[in-house]
Amino acid sequence: MRKSIAIDMDNVIVDIETNWINWYEKEFGVKIEREELLGKPEDEAFPDPAAALSLIYKTGFFRHAPIIEGAQEALLKLQEHYDIFIVSAAMEFPNSLPEKYDWLNEHFPFISWKNIVFCGDKRIIDTDYLIDDHLKNLDFCKGTPILFTASHNVNVTKHKRVNNWNEALALLGLH
Amino acid sequence: MRKSIAIDMDNVIVDIETNWINWYEKEFGVKIEREELLGKPEDEAFPDPAAALSLIYKTGFFRHAPIIEGAQEALLKLQEHYDIFIVSAAMEFPNSLPEKYDWLNEHFPFISWKNIVFCGDKRIIDTDYLIDDHLKNLDFCKGTPILFTASHNVNVTKHKRVNNWNEALALLGLH
Repeated sequence: MRKSIAIDMDNVIVDIETNWINWYEKEFGVKIEREELLGKPEDEAFPDPAAALSLIYKTGFFRHAPIIEGAQEALLKLQEHYDIFIVSAAMEFPNSLPEKYDWLNEHFPFISWKNIVFCGDKRIIDTDYLIDDHLKNLDFCKGTPILFTASHNVNVTKHKRVNNWNEALALLGLH
Repeated sequence: MRKSIAIDMDNVIVDIETNWINWYEKEFGVKIEREELLGKPEDEAFPDPAAALSLIYKTGFFRHAPIIEGAQEALLKLQEHYDIFIVSAAMEFPNSLPEKYDWLNEHFPFISWKNIVFCGDKRIIDTDYLIDDHLKNLDFCKGTPILFTASHNVNVTKHKRVNNWNEALALLGLH
């Protein structure tokens, strides 16, 4: 039987960090370097955290975010051997629901609606693997957790880490 | 440890049948009696199935659907003893995503965003129970399936059946 992989969106297939940096500069005129975000929780990473948070509610924030390098090719390859599910905790920001759906349709048209999950708590998701950037999801998943590197988690020492999609493919037996 | 229950939306907490009958009459001037729907698959139940299906894509179809009798009181009661998750295969009709979210917020404000799941295939959902009206979900769930009566499933003989929320509460040990 094919094994299943749940794949998070933000910081795993969506480059939400770059998106956030770009919007922050565009809206507030302050250019943040990626290095400044290293090791900081996402809600404390920007000079004005409340201003940064407000961006999440703006129309288009999720819809036009760039894609993480190599994600599309990697998921195409993974799909040949695994059942792939996109699992995003999108319910926290309901305005993101249609934007995330449209984003997936644009960048991952080969992922069926049957394999997309927008949820809150990911504990009820049962797949063989979870690729995610957050301990709040990885610590409680039913399968094997795989930590995908994002600036906020660089100091995390739990779980098997992959720094990019090439490393993820290698870990999952594909090259 | 508290047990968990996944609860479907349409035909379980949302009276989508009444909604469909009302919209069909309003849009096409034909009044369908509930008895005419008995035992028929939902996509063949109305005289003009394509016309009936087109209603699903209309703005407001999901947002203003009536609630199933007793659902609110039942879920309040269940929540005292179980972890309740709303699990809807909403991804098939992405236009329904914000409408279903707003509907839940109106009728079930006591359900956290953490406990809402909009998905496609429910096979990856792992809860102790699933209350649903469709075999395509119940047949593959990881927990105990509970069939909630809807017109289309009256002839189904698989799974434990409940005809309303009072029977569901009784089955789950609450009165």
